[in-house]
Amino acid sequence: MSLLPKSTPHFELQSRLKDIFGETRVSRSDLDRVAYARDLWPRLQLETRHGEVSNPPEFVVWPQSPTEVSQLLRLANDMHFPVIPYGAGSGVCGGTLPISGGVICDLKLLNRIIKLNHKAMTVTVQAGIIGEHLERELNRHGYTLGHFPSSIYCSTLGGYLAARSAGQLSTLYGKIEDMVVRLQAVLPDGTIMQTRRTPRSATGPDFDQVLVGSEGTLCVITWATLRIHLMPADRSFRAFTFDGLEKGVEAIRLMMRRGVKPAAVRLYDETDTALAMAAIEMEASGNLLILTFEGEPRMVAAYEGIAEQICLEAGGVDQGEKPARHWFEHRYAISYNQSKILSADRMVLDTIEVAAPWSGLLKLYKTMSNAISKHLTCMAHISHAYPDGASIYFTIIGLADEGKDIKLYDKVWDSALKACLRAGGVISHHHGVGLLKARFYEQQAPESVRLVRELKARLDPNNVLNPGKLGLS
Amino acid sequence: MSLLPKSTPHFELQSRLKDIFGETRVSRSDLDRVAYARDLWPRLQLETRHGEVSNPPEFVVWPQSPTEVSQLLRLANDMHFPVIPYGAGSGVCGGTLPISGGVICDLKLLNRIIKLNHKAMTVTVQAGIIGEHLERELNRHGYTLGHFPSSIYCSTLGGYLAARSAGQLSTLYGKIEDMVVRLQAVLPDGTIMQTRRTPRSATGPDFDQVLVGSEGTLCVITWATLRIHLMPADRSFRAFTFDGLEKGVEAIRLMMRRGVKPAAVRLYDETDTALAMAAIEMEASGNLLILTFEGEPRMVAAYEGIAEQICLEAGGVDQGEKPARHWFEHRYAISYNQSKILSADRMVLDTIEVAAPWSGLLKLYKTMSNAISKHLTCMAHISHAYPDGASIYFTIIGLADEGKDIKLYDKVWDSALKACLRAGGVISHHHGVGLLKARFYEQQAPESVRLVRELKARLDPNNVLNPGKLGLS
Repeated sequence: MSLLPKSTPHFELQSRLKDIFGETRVSRSDLDRVAYARDLWPRLQLETRHGEVSNPPEFVVWPQSPTEVSQLLRLANDMHFPVIPYGAGSGVCGGTLPISGGVICDLKLLNRIIKLNHKAMTVTVQAGIIGEHLERELNRHGYTLGHFPSSIYCSTLGGYLAARSAGQLSTLYGKIEDMVVRLQAVLPDGTIMQTRRTPRSATGPDFDQVLVGSEGTLCVITWATLRIHLMPADRSFRAFTFDGLEKGVEAIRLMMRRGVKPAAVRLYDETDTALAMAAIEMEASGNLLILTFEGEPRMVAAYEGIAEQICLEAGGVDQGEKPARHWFEHRYAISYNQSKILSADRMVLDTIEVAAPWSGLLKLYKTMSNAISKHLTCMAHISHAYPDGASIYFTIIGLADEGKDIKLYDKVWDSALKACLRAGGVISHHHGVGLLKARFYEQQAPESVRLVRELKARLDPNNVLNPGKLGLS
Repeated sequence: MSLLPKSTPHFELQSRLKDIFGETRVSRSDLDRVAYARDLWPRLQLETRHGEVSNPPEFVVWPQSPTEVSQLLRLANDMHFPVIPYGAGSGVCGGTLPISGGVICDLKLLNRIIKLNHKAMTVTVQAGIIGEHLERELNRHGYTLGHFPSSIYCSTLGGYLAARSAGQLSTLYGKIEDMVVRLQAVLPDGTIMQTRRTPRSATGPDFDQVLVGSEGTLCVITWATLRIHLMPADRSFRAFTFDGLEKGVEAIRLMMRRGVKPAAVRLYDETDTALAMAAIEMEASGNLLILTFEGEPRMVAAYEGIAEQICLEAGGVDQGEKPARHWFEHRYAISYNQSKILSADRMVLDTIEVAAPWSGLLKLYKTMSNAISKHLTCMAHISHAYPDGASIYFTIIGLADEGKDIKLYDKVWDSALKACLRAGGVISHHHGVGLLKARFYEQQAPESVRLVRELKARLDPNNVLNPGKLGLS
């Protein structure tokens, strides 16, 4: 018995797709259609718990070259069907759901490292590669990309780029947008383009940062050239506790002000601190700050020295290496618990990552904590510190009344993001917009949305690429 | 007697401009029209030497607010005349020439520092401010922008942003595009927009880098929020000579590879070395490398220590502090000699700044040196080092045959940029495109030019903003 709604098979389309992808790289099996009808958006898991599959694609295809992506898009313009670029399906905002049907374009066969450039310290790599595979291959040659999202085992480079991913060590290595030096992308009309050449040029506008973050609405990214770094020759771990979030935030801000770049910076609120310390059987009250440093030994020593001085002067109590080292060793564990927990009936769980400038960060924390706490338990940590501000990562969890889980889920998100905008925050730090945050995206950035619309109208007049996402029609 | 061609005064336009700008901030005097018919493009000085003024604007206006810029653009769409945004006229590529007539919009009255944000380490400042004024005001508060183009006394922030400026210390502080965290701009239809909020967000495309570098064709930038840094607590100077450009290039590349960030990095070819050493009455053969380091004392020491080790291992001979210190103390002097030298009859002089990845840098140097040397004397230094490559800055100088100066000038540029493209370089590192390099821009980046055209077609259907620049119609 199929979970799927009935649909009339589209024989003409099927035949044209097989012309491009052959017999084996086109599917309309129920199994594939169910699998590709979702990503890791927790709301979808609640739906699945109720036995619903809302948005099955009509077909799934697996291109092996940018040319095949181009052919697919030309066909989509001919026959007017949506094409949804797809990485590993680890997104948490519904950005790859085929809400108007159409064809899922799974890029995972485009997973080749095209060139490792030792002199330029760059790697050119196809978009479908899994993050961990890329990192491991770079490590083999003595390099690191420095991009460590907790989904690294089940997410692709194309997904990072499309949704503006930031890894756990973004304070040192930058976010994905800082790592890009050049892109290849297929435009909606099938044109295969490369953006401009490195190392740097004063020759007109740069569209890399428009294609990055476009969440599949403006192009299909097929490869990227990324900066790489030498594997760190040294690494150190530090932890401090502070009497109050405010003092910890001030210590981080002063580090950023002095140009110190820890790799990881994480400051936990009281609940999150209690959990973190319990896990390592240590006792400490207040707010835990963990810091890791890595790179050239002389630079690690310089950064650590200044950071230590700042933390102690700000009233921090040295907690040794252990809390930071434990976090580092378990840094990807969190992503694997979500599905398990959500399989429990009535359970509601998600994470909300926002950001604000330093001056508004505590207000954002309080405003959102208050809004969320009316519905669910919440805890948070501050991380991804930048010179001008930082991110707050809320975990929200609790039980809904029988049959009210989706309603509660929607309500808490609505309250949380309204509170975020009220407090002057940005509605997503690194999970993207997708469907989940589309309504709030235009409120936050109306003029940017206008520019996206103008460009999309020219590049994609038939609206074939991922329609309905980012709040676009 | 006027140098200017006759033109019919446009009374209706004049009256509408006075409605917006009042009596005193609209001009069509001969003096203003001559002054605003040029920038510091050397070709124009050759023309002036022949008594020609080719491109006078019909009017010059001086807005005092973004609203007035908006009103001007609405009027331009009503009455179909070009508007050319103008900073301080220090551009060297003809980017502000009113080649289709119209109105010069001089932004120098928009010169206010709107907000110095000590917590976020940013400054929000109007686009018409002179670079040196901004830097001096920041210094008063203990900060630096870190942007030091040699034109700093006679160039504006708006000009830096429009043409993708890079300062002399870009290896440490980044180029102007790295400093921008947010922009206000007036679009061609008069819409006043702000780009997205800081500190970082995963919410869709980011258009900052499309507006930056648009050379007045897509918008008028009216303010920007920029990152600032603490005034350096320490500064050190080092110099080494190498037996051949190749060894010096390799030393710089290894520094970048290890993550070392000198503030200035300049490696001179033989001719440029001879001049530099003669100026300080030192003797040394080979290729001079000067390095400056600045910032936190611990970081300066770490960077300098690694750099010294690399230079000595690469065969560098320590030349002490003097060459670097002398350069630093005279770092803006160069910009003031050009006009003086060009006043000599038959003299041809310019600078050509290109860039390439490390692997192609010496080939670029040789290919371009050969091409230029057929026409003029040339010397060069390598500077603005990045992890993936660096810039080469050629100075070209010589005497033309009587009456052949402009012909020679055009010929040497044509040869130089053809050689640049042939060798895989980028045609401008930090002077922009303007009119001078327009022909080569599309050859270098055809797909980027297409995207600019698509966006311009939507945003500026009447083509009122700086028509004919960047190779656009």
